[in-house]
Amino acid sequence: MKEPVNIIRDTDDQARGLARRLVRGARFAAIAVCEPDTGFPFVSRVLTGIDTDGTPVILISALSTHTAALRADPRASLLFGEPGKGDPLAHPRITVRTNAEQVSRDDPAHQRLRSRFIARHPKATLYVDFRDFAFFRMVPVSASLNGGFGKAYALEAADVLIASPAISELAEIEQSAIEHMNTDHAEAADFYARTLGKSSKSGWAIRGIDCAGLDLVHGDALLRIEFDAPIQTAGELRHKLAELMHSNRNN
Amino acid sequence: MKEPVNIIRDTDDQARGLARRLVRGARFAAIAVCEPDTGFPFVSRVLTGIDTDGTPVILISALSTHTAALRADPRASLLFGEPGKGDPLAHPRITVRTNAEQVSRDDPAHQRLRSRFIARHPKATLYVDFRDFAFFRMVPVSASLNGGFGKAYALEAADVLIASPAISELAEIEQSAIEHMNTDHAEAADFYARTLGKSSKSGWAIRGIDCAGLDLVHGDALLRIEFDAPIQTAGELRHKLAELMHSNRNN
Repeated sequence: MKEPVNIIRDTDDQARGLARRLVRGARFAAIAVCEPDTGFPFVSRVLTGIDTDGTPVILISALSTHTAALRADPRASLLFGEPGKGDPLAHPRITVRTNAEQVSRDDPAHQRLRSRFIARHPKATLYVDFRDFAFFRMVPVSASLNGGFGKAYALEAADVLIASPAISELAEIEQSAIEHMNTDHAEAADFYARTLGKSSKSGWAIRGIDCAGLDLVHGDALLRIEFDAPIQTAGELRHKLAELMHSNRNN
Repeated sequence: MKEPVNIIRDTDDQARGLARRLVRGARFAAIAVCEPDTGFPFVSRVLTGIDTDGTPVILISALSTHTAALRADPRASLLFGEPGKGDPLAHPRITVRTNAEQVSRDDPAHQRLRSRFIARHPKATLYVDFRDFAFFRMVPVSASLNGGFGKAYALEAADVLIASPAISELAEIEQSAIEHMNTDHAEAADFYARTLGKSSKSGWAIRGIDCAGLDLVHGDALLRIEFDAPIQTAGELRHKLAELMHSNRNN
């Protein structure tokens, strides 16, 4: 093995696609914050969801070190991408630098974050309404993608966010679209999971839809299906979902 | 579910045992550091080993963000304990606050760290001697253990370190003891893995021995076997290893 050179590769669509799948397909992340007073870097684990524009979302308790830290200094980074078997450093991962913004219960966005988060993490229903728990939108600043040895990329915030004029419009019909799919096209989720997510399990359900893709959930497992490109109008959704039924590409 | 109260439980031997198994049984950790100039908290992933006194050890490239950060500010924390299936927050994990100390190649400790690290991570042989790679001992300051919902403990550095008068003496005979065991008692590693580590695989080998326990390695898998108490003289090792052959407790 030759000694590596410090090369940050040019960001291409393949790198952006990998970054998005890592962030949007994660159930949890490691979070780094600065501890109050000392500024000591502190790392812990949080469950993650995403908002309709791709912004990572966390639900954390005021009793935790990271919540106290974020209230004093909103800067945080999130590490997405868990190793499976084999060499841990051969598995891709991404660090997203963020500024945390707490979303209060009277914020119009709260209901949306709450329902999308619970859809991904049904067990969070048990504590989501506790007074000491709060949602934070972790607004991306930049990101460092490591696709495995020697495959480093410096990404911009826009590379991990979802850009589409249809975000709000789709958010309004998200719940009814999910119910329609899981009721009238109950076979679709398993088909997507098998053909696009390489899953051999059955019993998947669609739990989230945004302009860039679908969240499939099966118990504690999450599969993120990315569209080839974000949809530009809510009306495109039906066509996109039908199109995926005739797809057999690998996600 | 009742709303939780902010209770840090009293640290008992069960918590200490869990903390040690998490730190010493990990192949990798998430590391939080402060980025140079900005102080932005940055999280990434590192392979981990332990020194003979239990101090976590990492091997990192000067080309990485975390190495540049540690050279400017040695404060770092390490998150050990990976979730398996199911709810990620139900799995125990520990954050160890540390001060990083680089170990240069002419340091007497370097050879020991190098051989112990490679024994855990054979693939690191490929790059351990690259000029831009360096070992850091991550000297514990304190730790936060989370044993699952509502099971939080504040630990001291001593709770995760190995205390014994025999550390140096055992380090000197470690390699010969490992070779003896893997050659003359080749069945021992699989027996330990099966009875103490709940492994159904065979083909384990002993790759590390310190006063507090054994590292068993099988390909990319690591099993940490902790003794019931650290040995106090190197001469005790033989007896301890024989004793484990008659044990069927769960680790």
